[in-house]
Amino acid sequence: MISVIIAGFNGAMGQKAVQLVTATPEFQLAGVFNPHVTSRRATDYGLDDAVTVYNDLEQITTPADVWLDFSTPSGVATNAQFAITRRMRPVIGTSGLTEDQQRQLQATANARQLGGIIAPNFGLTAVLMMKFAQQAAAYLKRAEIVEYHHEDKVDAPSGTALNTARLIYEAQRVDEPQPSAELDPLGARGGDYHGIKIHAVRLPGVVADEEVIFGGPGETLTIKQSTTDRQSFMTGVRLAIAAVVQRQDLVIGLENIL
Amino acid sequence: MISVIIAGFNGAMGQKAVQLVTATPEFQLAGVFNPHVTSRRATDYGLDDAVTVYNDLEQITTPADVWLDFSTPSGVATNAQFAITRRMRPVIGTSGLTEDQQRQLQATANARQLGGIIAPNFGLTAVLMMKFAQQAAAYLKRAEIVEYHHEDKVDAPSGTALNTARLIYEAQRVDEPQPSAELDPLGARGGDYHGIKIHAVRLPGVVADEEVIFGGPGETLTIKQSTTDRQSFMTGVRLAIAAVVQRQDLVIGLENIL
Amino acid sequence: MISVIIAGFNGAMGQKAVQLVTATPEFQLAGVFNPHVTSRRATDYGLDDAVTVYNDLEQITTPADVWLDFSTPSGVATNAQFAITRRMRPVIGTSGLTEDQQRQLQATANARQLGGIIAPNFGLTAVLMMKFAQQAAAYLKRAEIVEYHHEDKVDAPSGTALNTARLIYEAQRVDEPQPSAELDPLGARGGDYHGIKIHAVRLPGVVADEEVIFGGPGETLTIKQSTTDRQSFMTGVRLAIAAVVQRQDLVIGLENIL
Amino acid sequence: MISVIIAGFNGAMGQKAVQLVTATPEFQLAGVFNPHVTSRRATDYGLDDAVTVYNDLEQITTPADVWLDFSTPSGVATNAQFAITRRMRPVIGTSGLTEDQQRQLQATANARQLGGIIAPNFGLTAVLMMKFAQQAAAYLKRAEIVEYHHEDKVDAPSGTALNTARLIYEAQRVDEPQPSAELDPLGARGGDYHGIKIHAVRLPGVVADEEVIFGGPGETLTIKQSTTDRQSFMTGVRLAIAAVVQRQDLVIGLENIL
Repeated sequence: MISVIIAGFNGAMGQKAVQLVTATPEFQLAGVFNPHVTSRRATDYGLDDAVTVYNDLEQITTPADVWLDFSTPSGVATNAQFAITRRMRPVIGTSGLTEDQQRQLQATANARQLGGIIAPNFGLTAVLMMKFAQQAAAYLKRAEIVEYHHEDKVDAPSGTALNTARLIYEAQRVDEPQPSAELDPLGARGGDYHGIKIHAVRLPGVVADEEVIFGGPGETLTIKQSTTDRQSFMTGVRLAIAAVVQRQDLVIGLENIL
Repeated sequence: MISVIIAGFNGAMGQKAVQLVTATPEFQLAGVFNPHVTSRRATDYGLDDAVTVYNDLEQITTPADVWLDFSTPSGVATNAQFAITRRMRPVIGTSGLTEDQQRQLQATANARQLGGIIAPNFGLTAVLMMKFAQQAAAYLKRAEIVEYHHEDKVDAPSGTALNTARLIYEAQRVDEPQPSAELDPLGARGGDYHGIKIHAVRLPGVVADEEVIFGGPGETLTIKQSTTDRQSFMTGVRLAIAAVVQRQDLVIGLENIL
Repeated sequence: MISVIIAGFNGAMGQKAVQLVTATPEFQLAGVFNPHVTSRRATDYGLDDAVTVYNDLEQITTPADVWLDFSTPSGVATNAQFAITRRMRPVIGTSGLTEDQQRQLQATANARQLGGIIAPNFGLTAVLMMKFAQQAAAYLKRAEIVEYHHEDKVDAPSGTALNTARLIYEAQRVDEPQPSAELDPLGARGGDYHGIKIHAVRLPGVVADEEVIFGGPGETLTIKQSTTDRQSFMTGVRLAIAAVVQRQDLVIGLENIL
Repeated sequence: MISVIIAGFNGAMGQKAVQLVTATPEFQLAGVFNPHVTSRRATDYGLDDAVTVYNDLEQITTPADVWLDFSTPSGVATNAQFAITRRMRPVIGTSGLTEDQQRQLQATANARQLGGIIAPNFGLTAVLMMKFAQQAAAYLKRAEIVEYHHEDKVDAPSGTALNTARLIYEAQRVDEPQPSAELDPLGARGGDYHGIKIHAVRLPGVVADEEVIFGGPGETLTIKQSTTDRQSFMTGVRLAIAAVVQRQDLVIGLENIL
């Protein structure tokens, strides 16, 4: 049985995390934390009486096995540091940690041989897609990425698409070859990352899909990840919790525990 | 039995056309034409003795039912004009006719109640895709196009993709709505035609594919056309030959006979 | 402004219908009906005071323009009959009407030159897919259907898949040709409807998708419909309401008003 | 520079192999072998004079680095045995070796620390697809396979599809869960391998495609391999030749060198 404290328990992701931990027989929800709540009665949040509600880190005198963090960019660094010093393994889904902060947390955790994970994306299929793309890139020299998101996403390309391009480039270490004289008056060839083209589609009816297409003589390989419901992220969180209690180091990116 | 004369019979498309007409029981290859060949012996070109080889239009004193043209941009206008005046129904796959020339040929043929077709694309699935896209555009207000071609194609987007966007726009008559403030530093959102985005993928292993994706609340509709072999164009040519002998007018675009 | 009474207003589909009618400026929610509710206070259901709640058909003395029915198989026939005799145009999404009942309602409505629609499926993209499949079937002689649903769907194939196969067959009027001696020990070739093969995939993470693939020499045409959220059905309902006030007959199937 | 002798050099695959070896700067075509040819003049086969033509194994006194075999089921065992005893690394694409013969060749090669490969499928993207499917199967418990082939393929499912199902099962070691009471009067749910469903589509216009779809809560992962031209197999052959000169053992399956 793995005991868990959830930071940011009443945000959108935090609520899904509470459901996940409660519904998983091997997990036990020991406590929840949010410095901005006033009531400390569990039942006020629809939680079981056995769950302790904290609104100050100093109240946490009984550490859990795992610190699951879906709090805020401003609080996450302090939370993670606190968790590690109390020997609670951090599983961090909150964005906002700088690379410096990440390295520092990693050093602190590793020095104590404490497992942990900081992950920008807990989507299991997204991470598997990136992992496979990196492997395929060693054998197939040409790749393009097409990502599809709902029409309200205003930035393009998606972080996952850009990250996938980066992983492909790291595996190939040379810019992908391009036709020498391309005629493209409208910019239809899309964004470019070291020769890897990225195309962003925005349409209602789509949640979040991404595909990488590799081409070689007479054949193509397509790896496509499709999301129909945001609850998908919880599959990755469950894997992360199970992994950190087995590890003695803190890793960055879900791909490192798959 | 429909008799056919093929102009440009020894080019890449012309050769496929000869195969098609020869292999179709309802068609009869009456003659072939190319002003640049010197020998007029059918067997020199692997053709049956019953086929007459012409290298000058004036030699053609016995008109066929259909004039199938896969010749050259410089010769096609004269060829088509000649065919119509001899009451041979023109099926024109050669590019290079100006809009003026097309209108003039149409007027001449229609005045004589002679069937005919000028088609930039004889790909049946491409034309069906465009036709369906135009219909869907009346009900679904947002669409994007992704086209995939082999890496040697240097221009983007494809003519079919641009034509599809034009047909969608004609059905909607308003620019598609776009997010007001889009962040797209790399140009990943692709080419734009009245709000319809066009994405061009170039990869080895692909011949020529194109898809239109329509999005509405909670659902998408994708119409995808995929080519694995250039012989596909001959399906459209066969339909065109069968159609022009039934019509009394000349149409532009295969979609008008489907 | 089109006034609407919704039958079955507090079921899953009925609630979405209430949202739709309330949110559409051209529509006005005049009343709601369910014989099983006891309170007749609109605010008890979160509705505006201006909406009349009925729990007996006889209370409905002020007819609306449209009767939108998402009630129950046992009540729908009586509801529809009532609506027509009061000159309310029926838009019926409730299943359970026999073919006899449908014909009778159609005869009654048509005799009064009253518009109406009975639709087993209000999914716009599903209906467009079926419509395009029927058109394509006239030109491409070979088709297969692959449908994808969530793992809790216990029947296969889906009604939409079977309906699509039926429409293709009606357009072709001959059984599709099959290889003479097929070796298929596991039954991987799927279900058969007059030579059109149907494949049913059941997986978590899928809501409801369906694709028809047509094949011809060197090319394929794929028409795919994908659902990410059940709210998609409301697009078809909106189109149906707008259509029935313009028509003088009752049609069966959303495809007949597209 | 790697020298190569090709067995079965004038068959369909053999000819492609000759092209590949000739066109690759790092490879050198030292000889070709076929016991059924009579002329031993290289130019009779369009080959360079420097290539030796053998029609008897005993003529081969100068071994090459690699023995590339696309011969016949009846000759391949003797060929491979001969190659190994002369320290030529075997790259075997010919089918027909029994499991016993494969094990014996493996034992002989390994005892001499000689690299080699026997591969039923040199398609690179097919092998990568299988490899990734096996990895994904550890994290996603439900999968189905859809394979698409041209209409002349009379057996179903394809060997690759069945092999993929086997790899998924080996990774999971439990039968995939199925709905308890499935209603499937037409057999639309397809073939079954330990709970993994396999669907086979046969259509003109398709060469050979295969996709594995994994489903989890709210998300899917699709790995699709598509072939447009049979030349694709040569990519795998090139990788195999490069690999065997580096290895000290004989492996079975291209996946073992990727």
